[in-house]
Amino acid sequence: MIQKLINNIVAKDAPIVVGLDPTLKFIPEKLLKESYEEFGANLKGVSEAIWKFNKAIIDSTYDLIPAVKPQIAMYEQFGVPGVEVFKRTVDYCKEKGLIVIGDVKRGDIGSTSTAYAIGHLGSVEIEGKTFIPFDEDFATVNPYLGTDGVKPFVDICNSNDRGIFVLVKTSNPSSGEFQDRIIDGKPLYEHVADKVNEWGSVSMDGDYSNVGAVVGATYPEQGEILRKKMPNVYILVPGYGAQGGRGADLVHFFNKDGLGAIINSSRGIIAAYQNEKYASFGAENFADASRQAVLDMRADIKSALG
Amino acid sequence: MIQKLINNIVAKDAPIVVGLDPTLKFIPEKLLKESYEEFGANLKGVSEAIWKFNKAIIDSTYDLIPAVKPQIAMYEQFGVPGVEVFKRTVDYCKEKGLIVIGDVKRGDIGSTSTAYAIGHLGSVEIEGKTFIPFDEDFATVNPYLGTDGVKPFVDICNSNDRGIFVLVKTSNPSSGEFQDRIIDGKPLYEHVADKVNEWGSVSMDGDYSNVGAVVGATYPEQGEILRKKMPNVYILVPGYGAQGGRGADLVHFFNKDGLGAIINSSRGIIAAYQNEKYASFGAENFADASRQAVLDMRADIKSALG
Repeated sequence: MIQKLINNIVAKDAPIVVGLDPTLKFIPEKLLKESYEEFGANLKGVSEAIWKFNKAIIDSTYDLIPAVKPQIAMYEQFGVPGVEVFKRTVDYCKEKGLIVIGDVKRGDIGSTSTAYAIGHLGSVEIEGKTFIPFDEDFATVNPYLGTDGVKPFVDICNSNDRGIFVLVKTSNPSSGEFQDRIIDGKPLYEHVADKVNEWGSVSMDGDYSNVGAVVGATYPEQGEILRKKMPNVYILVPGYGAQGGRGADLVHFFNKDGLGAIINSSRGIIAAYQNEKYASFGAENFADASRQAVLDMRADIKSALG
Repeated sequence: MIQKLINNIVAKDAPIVVGLDPTLKFIPEKLLKESYEEFGANLKGVSEAIWKFNKAIIDSTYDLIPAVKPQIAMYEQFGVPGVEVFKRTVDYCKEKGLIVIGDVKRGDIGSTSTAYAIGHLGSVEIEGKTFIPFDEDFATVNPYLGTDGVKPFVDICNSNDRGIFVLVKTSNPSSGEFQDRIIDGKPLYEHVADKVNEWGSVSMDGDYSNVGAVVGATYPEQGEILRKKMPNVYILVPGYGAQGGRGADLVHFFNKDGLGAIINSSRGIIAAYQNEKYASFGAENFADASRQAVLDMRADIKSALG
């Protein structure tokens, strides 16, 4: 699966992923009202507004980007109708040829992790027929429970040609509380990185593994160390833009082949029309503002890498 | 909220929680076939079979138990129809007076953790009306991302009278890979326990905090240490029964007041009819077998604590 992502990145000449993390305050008022009129001012109405919002942004950017990363929390917050729109968004993005990274940060033990892996990356056999629950291409995975929690995902990566990104060093201010603590002379995140290498060694797909890592753009020094430590591991880099990561910081996350990292931006793209820089588009042209923000992000990263 | 759980535990004289973790292989063949005939042999058909399975077990045990712990992974594996049945199960358990611990092991950063907290423990305001997405009383939370990931849950515990259980030392064999590593002279799980004390100190409800901890029954020595370290923290103890934890191991998880811990059993209760000990009930009386397994578990724990 990682080669499919790489092929898309190379074809679009853009190591970027758009985070589809909609919240109520990103949805233009008019779109929200229309949806309330059609479906009711309730969880279903909000969810259908999110669907229209997502679809417009996907339609306006899919030719420029290799992948999307819907954050399932933003859909779960609207209950079952929200989860239904998460699934619809995944399906639509795949129709458009995009790789879908489900930002689900799941992780549990043994058979429970298997259930999550089936739900997000696998399939269910019922009376001899195969059914596909959520159908993402990649999922993000939390490593706190150790190998028992991650291996079921790796097994499904292998049997079903999928991938995962394991949280190593997250982009948030307090990520260091546990992740930076020193164990045997090096921080916990480096121990997790060692395990990512180990877990990924049985799921190679060309030069890279289907088992990737999440390392925040907000920690470029750690990114440089982790890049060297995990040469065959693709790094998903959140934290660019709204969280404070800058293009110039990103160079450390890439390998010399120009590959090895994919940079996420969520708010910076999907809520671009609310940013002063793109305010001239107006709320009704939010999807055009997102397209311009993608073009600008691509240019920023190319210039930083160039 | 923790006092509501304690009140239920005292009223039922049973510090136990039934894990509603259904998988295909636990569902009696007849029930599955009936559901396939009514809803189709597909994700909807399986999910509706799970609903009937859950409902029968709840009806047969709710008078004996204070709480249930549905594991959302087991529902997510069947896609949107599965998630719909998760929600229906939560609602039905609450109708029956049970406290619902959503075993969701969520955890993300800032606004994303807030979205999870809203989805599982909070509510959404739409045009001046309040809507409740999933409505559990407690949720389990993964601490790997630090305070940024946990505080949004604590805020909603405070504003909406709910609770959480933070993963400290999990019950699985490889939980030690990261959790047991020594940092400044003590294992990571003790550092997490220190933070649980800190996070919970702002959400006290009587003698106990709404911020609890998960510590596996399979690690009784660590349980004893953590019990003393977190005197005001309720401990949710998975791993009893099928995972190997025994009644005698559990005494260390309780405080001298006889409170402070709640023991989970999943397979041991809901799939009791598949256990040789309860085979005489037969598959058609699976719910009666579950009731007997609850009675036996309660007696085992009472005798261990006595």
